[in-house]
Amino acid sequence: MKVCTGASMSLDGYVSGPGETGFEHLFAWYGNGDIDMPTGNPEMTFRLTQASYDHQKAFTSELGALVVGRKLFDFTNGWGGKHPLEVPTVVLTHNPPTGYEDNKWFAFVTDGIESAIAKAHEIGGGRTVGLNSGTIASQALDAGLLDEVWIDLVPVLLGGGTPFFSGLGSAPVELEGPLESVQGNRVTHLRYRVKK
Amino acid sequence: MKVCTGASMSLDGYVSGPGETGFEHLFAWYGNGDIDMPTGNPEMTFRLTQASYDHQKAFTSELGALVVGRKLFDFTNGWGGKHPLEVPTVVLTHNPPTGYEDNKWFAFVTDGIESAIAKAHEIGGGRTVGLNSGTIASQALDAGLLDEVWIDLVPVLLGGGTPFFSGLGSAPVELEGPLESVQGNRVTHLRYRVKK
Repeated sequence: MKVCTGASMSLDGYVSGPGETGFEHLFAWYGNGDIDMPTGNPEMTFRLTQASYDHQKAFTSELGALVVGRKLFDFTNGWGGKHPLEVPTVVLTHNPPTGYEDNKWFAFVTDGIESAIAKAHEIGGGRTVGLNSGTIASQALDAGLLDEVWIDLVPVLLGGGTPFFSGLGSAPVELEGPLESVQGNRVTHLRYRVKK
Repeated sequence: MKVCTGASMSLDGYVSGPGETGFEHLFAWYGNGDIDMPTGNPEMTFRLTQASYDHQKAFTSELGALVVGRKLFDFTNGWGGKHPLEVPTVVLTHNPPTGYEDNKWFAFVTDGIESAIAKAHEIGGGRTVGLNSGTIASQALDAGLLDEVWIDLVPVLLGGGTPFFSGLGSAPVELEGPLESVQGNRVTHLRYRVKK
């Protein structure tokens, strides 16, 4: 089993600026190239540079399922029915939302990160499990379950906001790499392995 | 005039971990190579990889003077008489220490970052001014006086501590680059230009 996480992050370590700002900087690279990358949502097509496209494709093509937190699920309103990466998604939450039940695209797990990852491994057919949010990734790191960290490092200082990793009980955590360093347009794609 | 700042920083944006920890990770690259780099202190010689040495040399060879904060000056006890990079150093402080006066190696400035940088420019013979500490660098950024940011990005998550930049009034600050990306041993040297 391979468990990865990733995020677009400012040079000062934030995945969103103060008061949920800064996304025009953090996600600029999703739209500043000339290669179309369709998503599961027909109204949302990314336009990446070739370098970013190839890097992103390497991640998504091995992805079997995602684990996300309830906050992200709610914020996106369940992505309107399925995650744009079109993989089954496990929502880790203490209180599963009413009106939803497990279906082809979503499963709800209430008993912790280990169980959520196991579920994602199962419904993802044994392919890579992606963790989408730093809180979820931090829990996995603390449980010794995270294998790789993919950082899309954006040349901006946000000065505050939400750090990618937070509440890490196991810090300091040593990583190996970068195994890859790919330059896109206003982004440096870095891939690290968690030292075990 | 060119004004630069730099620091060894963890992947999650900290220049020291919780309770002043993590330095064995942040500064590992100063000692994990096989090229000697002497400092002004005969008891302290760095041992860098060739890649890190060349990168570091590019920075120090154009350096004329430094601006540091009082905290760092006190923490190092005035580096025992001169900064290890052997350049004149301007200490920006509200209260100059007693028992010191301006000499060949140190000058004390009390009237703000602009004045401190002007002083460093003057005593450094017009060569690059280096700002040593994120607080000082943040003040310079806010005053529109910072030109480059050199980050030595270390593959470790410290989970908390002192962020490099703090109290940035001018955030978000866009940078250009990296103009350089050099891989050392357990460090990636990145150089950015501040967008103006």
